[in-house]
Amino acid sequence: MDFLQANLIYLIPVLGLVGIIVMIVKSAWVVRQDAGEEGMQSLAGHIAEGAMAFLRAEWKVLSYFVIIAAILLAWSGTLVETSSWVIAISFIIGAVISAFAGYIGMNIATKANVRTTQAARSSLVKALRVSFTGGTVMGLGVAGLAVLGMGTLFIIFYQMFVVSTGGNVNGLEMEKALEVLAGFSLGAESIALFARVGGGIYTKAADVGADLVGKVEAGIPEDDVRNPATIADNVGDNVGDVAGMGADLFGSYVATILATMVLGREIISDDNFGGIAPILLPILIAGLGLIFSIAGASLVRIKNDQGDVQQALNLGNWSSIVFTAIASYFVVGWLLPDQLHLRGVSFTSLDVFFSIVIGLIVGALMSIVTEYYTAMGKRPVTSIVKQSSTGHATNIIGGLSVGMESTAVPTIILAGGIITSYAFAGLYGVAIAAAGMMATTAMQLAIDAFGPIADNAGGIAEMSGLPKEVRERTDKLDAVGNTTAATGKGFAIASAALTALALFAAFVGIAGIDSIDLYKAPVLGALFIGAMIPFIFSSLAIAAVGRAAMAMVEEVRRQFREIPGIMEYKAKPEYDKCVAISTKASIREMIAPGAIALVVPILVGFGFKGVFEDTSSAEILGGLLAGVTVSGVLLGMFQNNAGGAWDNAKKSFEAGVEINGKMEYKGSDAHKASVTGDTVGDPFKDTSGPSMNILIKLMSIVSLVIAPHISVGGGSLDAIADTETAIEKVMPNVEQEKAYSLAQKHQ
Amino acid sequence: MDFLQANLIYLIPVLGLVGIIVMIVKSAWVVRQDAGEEGMQSLAGHIAEGAMAFLRAEWKVLSYFVIIAAILLAWSGTLVETSSWVIAISFIIGAVISAFAGYIGMNIATKANVRTTQAARSSLVKALRVSFTGGTVMGLGVAGLAVLGMGTLFIIFYQMFVVSTGGNVNGLEMEKALEVLAGFSLGAESIALFARVGGGIYTKAADVGADLVGKVEAGIPEDDVRNPATIADNVGDNVGDVAGMGADLFGSYVATILATMVLGREIISDDNFGGIAPILLPILIAGLGLIFSIAGASLVRIKNDQGDVQQALNLGNWSSIVFTAIASYFVVGWLLPDQLHLRGVSFTSLDVFFSIVIGLIVGALMSIVTEYYTAMGKRPVTSIVKQSSTGHATNIIGGLSVGMESTAVPTIILAGGIITSYAFAGLYGVAIAAAGMMATTAMQLAIDAFGPIADNAGGIAEMSGLPKEVRERTDKLDAVGNTTAATGKGFAIASAALTALALFAAFVGIAGIDSIDLYKAPVLGALFIGAMIPFIFSSLAIAAVGRAAMAMVEEVRRQFREIPGIMEYKAKPEYDKCVAISTKASIREMIAPGAIALVVPILVGFGFKGVFEDTSSAEILGGLLAGVTVSGVLLGMFQNNAGGAWDNAKKSFEAGVEINGKMEYKGSDAHKASVTGDTVGDPFKDTSGPSMNILIKLMSIVSLVIAPHISVGGGSLDAIADTETAIEKVMPNVEQEKAYSLAQKHQ
Repeated sequence: MDFLQANLIYLIPVLGLVGIIVMIVKSAWVVRQDAGEEGMQSLAGHIAEGAMAFLRAEWKVLSYFVIIAAILLAWSGTLVETSSWVIAISFIIGAVISAFAGYIGMNIATKANVRTTQAARSSLVKALRVSFTGGTVMGLGVAGLAVLGMGTLFIIFYQMFVVSTGGNVNGLEMEKALEVLAGFSLGAESIALFARVGGGIYTKAADVGADLVGKVEAGIPEDDVRNPATIADNVGDNVGDVAGMGADLFGSYVATILATMVLGREIISDDNFGGIAPILLPILIAGLGLIFSIAGASLVRIKNDQGDVQQALNLGNWSSIVFTAIASYFVVGWLLPDQLHLRGVSFTSLDVFFSIVIGLIVGALMSIVTEYYTAMGKRPVTSIVKQSSTGHATNIIGGLSVGMESTAVPTIILAGGIITSYAFAGLYGVAIAAAGMMATTAMQLAIDAFGPIADNAGGIAEMSGLPKEVRERTDKLDAVGNTTAATGKGFAIASAALTALALFAAFVGIAGIDSIDLYKAPVLGALFIGAMIPFIFSSLAIAAVGRAAMAMVEEVRRQFREIPGIMEYKAKPEYDKCVAISTKASIREMIAPGAIALVVPILVGFGFKGVFEDTSSAEILGGLLAGVTVSGVLLGMFQNNAGGAWDNAKKSFEAGVEINGKMEYKGSDAHKASVTGDTVGDPFKDTSGPSMNILIKLMSIVSLVIAPHISVGGGSLDAIADTETAIEKVMPNVEQEKAYSLAQKHQ
Repeated sequence: MDFLQANLIYLIPVLGLVGIIVMIVKSAWVVRQDAGEEGMQSLAGHIAEGAMAFLRAEWKVLSYFVIIAAILLAWSGTLVETSSWVIAISFIIGAVISAFAGYIGMNIATKANVRTTQAARSSLVKALRVSFTGGTVMGLGVAGLAVLGMGTLFIIFYQMFVVSTGGNVNGLEMEKALEVLAGFSLGAESIALFARVGGGIYTKAADVGADLVGKVEAGIPEDDVRNPATIADNVGDNVGDVAGMGADLFGSYVATILATMVLGREIISDDNFGGIAPILLPILIAGLGLIFSIAGASLVRIKNDQGDVQQALNLGNWSSIVFTAIASYFVVGWLLPDQLHLRGVSFTSLDVFFSIVIGLIVGALMSIVTEYYTAMGKRPVTSIVKQSSTGHATNIIGGLSVGMESTAVPTIILAGGIITSYAFAGLYGVAIAAAGMMATTAMQLAIDAFGPIADNAGGIAEMSGLPKEVRERTDKLDAVGNTTAATGKGFAIASAALTALALFAAFVGIAGIDSIDLYKAPVLGALFIGAMIPFIFSSLAIAAVGRAAMAMVEEVRRQFREIPGIMEYKAKPEYDKCVAISTKASIREMIAPGAIALVVPILVGFGFKGVFEDTSSAEILGGLLAGVTVSGVLLGMFQNNAGGAWDNAKKSFEAGVEINGKMEYKGSDAHKASVTGDTVGDPFKDTSGPSMNILIKLMSIVSLVIAPHISVGGGSLDAIADTETAIEKVMPNVEQEKAYSLAQKHQ
């Protein structure tokens, strides 16, 4: 135990490494599976080729962005004492690892899809195993790389800034180490912006473009290999649902851990673990959650083809959550002292544990409510189905109404989670709740990524003309995948919200302000501006889908015109050109919304510096962030759930639905109205809705990175004086002397 | 001048009285105009009868509500020292006057419509004069009653609570007087809730119900007298556009003045005007704005039938704004001392004047931007027209995108207004900016109400089969009316936003808290809950329109079935039953959203009392209000502008539009898609969008009324001690001694 205590900091990257090793083993297992006949392999090859084309094009553009941003960071880092040029390197590492995690997910998804098809030829048992193992590879890759990367960098920065300078583990030296680590998070989130938002524009542009020219103009069926945009369409599913979601959660995972570490620095505790126990806790829990996700994933099995797939997924998911909760109890008790103090709030180690449990509960509840609002047969979707019978307009009104209503219960859950975790352990409680919720990210992602793999597998089965029972088996998996896609979005937005709040709290700490007072008009004005940003962002994203789809239409028309023989299967369409067009269009369309997310915090933070006597620019920026977060979370839920409900209202007609005593099927007027809703919902649920996650996190992390530059505390001497005052304030009764001597010892 | 100074307080109700006398004169003039032939009079009679039926039914329900609420207020008022049973009487008076103002507007609108039709038979000059005078009656009625009512009550309460007790004009006694006056505002806003939201549900329910059964099932044309719901439909236009808007602005007008008075109480100034100059200023400016609105209204004339109606309205509007601004300059200089101090902020009387100007500018800019986003021929509407050519879904996506985009510039204007007026004169500056903006409410309402009068006049001309040139003349007025309806909504939401902020600031003062710190998790949680409420409120309102329309359909079907001879013009349909059904349905559907607005602040204010050690329930409620306001303003603009843009995109097809080089007219597929957008936009722009105004104001005013009950300051002795501390804080350099002696003198 003593050895463990002394070397705990080194254990963390080891846990990440374990995740990566298991991932490699599982990945190898998937690749070893039979990929089926040549026709199937060729189809899968086209999709994989398209996915790689997307990544190549994306990376090319991103490399410029990363280099420029890194130079700016290095330059600005040397301007203030609390930061340094190392943050630029940290940023590059974060960006590269995030891109690499996306590559792993995309790569395994495009390998697992065809192998799932082949497995489905023999049994559902095997098909589930292949597809879910593919998802697990993605989950473990994302979580493993995050824990390994952050764990290793923390060791390096801790040595560099704190140990080697003999610095204060709760002081400015540690702040510098964590600030530099924030560069890693910024890098990860920047890549996520392009993966999630660009991916969202990409997938819908390809979808709409392929349909408009292929189905409508050329009269060839959906997913026909002669359509140059078909591969882009299939790639789009992977880009949006696999890579986009993966990058999003990778960003949340990293940012949550980081924010909790930053808040942990300010906690006044004992000298155990070199005094950094509250800093280590979030990353240790992430590591444990990773291990228990591996355990949970091994439970996802069905005994025979009559097995309940959803139940198997639930068993795995709940096991990993419960194991993590139990383990947290012991880890918290072992790691933390009985009493902790953070900015006037005192709490026990048990309180911290309760906060973690609250995070786990919030994540689970959010998923359940999201499922209710988007599932077939439940009241919300059924109401949209009924309103489709009176036309397009009532279908739209119904969906908008359901989407708006769907924000109520999740908001109450979220606010309840925030308030109760705060009641237990102050702002550290809110942050550690987020960390608890994110602990089983590997498992969540495995479940999420399994859906599109099964979906693609079904498409390949259809296109290859395999026997009916194969498609029936993949359909079973796909149906479960639809549910997990919806619940995954609920989890993602909840995690983004808690992450943004944790970052928000961390920002306040580093910016050296002690309140964000809405009673000051500049803060209130900033709250308005902040709340408006998700609206303009959504507007831009939705409009971008329209424009990008038009660009795709032009390219497909050109290929049909200029390449003779496509329609007679004599010439192969230039799939990669469509993919490149779509990628370029999506990245171009990303610039305006992306610039808003990156630039606005910088403009506000620096632009209002010193403008108001009683209100610092950091406080104004805090108001802005609160506005963005609140409005972004609500608009995100509204759009995701409206889109999901419209989608399933349309799907309800495939099996036939009873409206006012009459059965309505595909092709009826009511069904046509439901298609309108589904089309409106597409950019809602796959582009603008999910991008709210990135928007709120990225603006928070940018603010955190610029916080030392706009800090009101001034130089380090001021900050130390502040620390002493803070100690006096927060520790009126408890061991003030000891804290003083601690503070002085480290100066 | 000395006499004026001594009796200034009595001048204010006199100004209100002047407005009312002018209103009576103008009203008598309108009634004296020729109402045309018997057929026209009969149609107008049905509409007037329906409007009264609506008011009777509404008043019946409201009287229960007012009595119950008054009893609760009286009971709770006696519980705390700072309030009293007088607040209940004040509440009843506010409710009755608000209802009476609605009656005046409705009454004159239903008289002016047919007289405008008749006037249009001779000339446009006369038609404009009749319709605009009708609008002026409404405007003067609302503003005159508000100034008279508030002015008189303030004199009474000032005598009762301050003068007769020898109390402190800046102390608790004045707080009590203003708190009781808040009852007046609560009464006004409660009636506005039913008028605006109920009216919004009513008008759309009647509209959709009349169309579905009349046009679709019975095959009779729109506005056919055989349709039992036709009168309800025409009444609905008056209910929503005249009475709803009037009640909304009446509420804003009263609440803004009140909030500024409350903030003015806390200002430390000299002894001029009995020390209450900052309290008197907002109501005096309102009175002056009323007088200059009369002057401006007299300028609204065209010389001949080729005259530009919009230009005439603009001349009147801008004249009243400029006159009011100039007058404010002199009034502020005369009334206020050179230096004022409010909670740590010092400012000059000139700063106060600049804040007023900012309010006037914000109001004007908001109207201009709103017009841009909803006007035919401008980029936003044209983009929706183009997107209609590819179907229903792209029309909807286009409208949603335009609506979201339309929030950007107005939010920046609003935030800019808040921040600059605060920079000039602190929170008093923000409130007085709102008061400045609202000063010309009489003129704004005259312009607003003129539109639906002209609209109805055109309908009567059409139904009576009058010559083509009559309709052409009313159409000219109606076209201008469409523009003023859109700009009126922009003004209404801006005024609601500033009013809510002024109330918010007043609430903080009375609740005895000195900050609303977003860095406390309960406040942040409340911000989330608050921001969610406009979503659930909108969802309920939109869904209510659907249900109420269905109830109307049932009633029309019943009349066709049970009353023989309707179709042969042998039996008169029971118009009032339709009106009653629609009224009852709309009021029933109002209960859930109305209850949210009234009950949530009470639940939060009392429910969280004493729950958190470091966060008072007043602070949590403050966070809730900020969330409601921000989210409500954004959702309101989004819905209003999307609805307005969809409406005009549809109207563009009537004249024919060019899409991709091809002319498209009414009846084309693109036009059908635009009708879908218009139908979706109907509840957006006429029900849920405008109700956001009421929601945010009502929740703020409820909070203000309960503020003394949840105050953290405790009894009056604490408050006086606080005042002394406050004086020390805010006046480190300036005449501290004088302020001390002032405070002691009044104790």
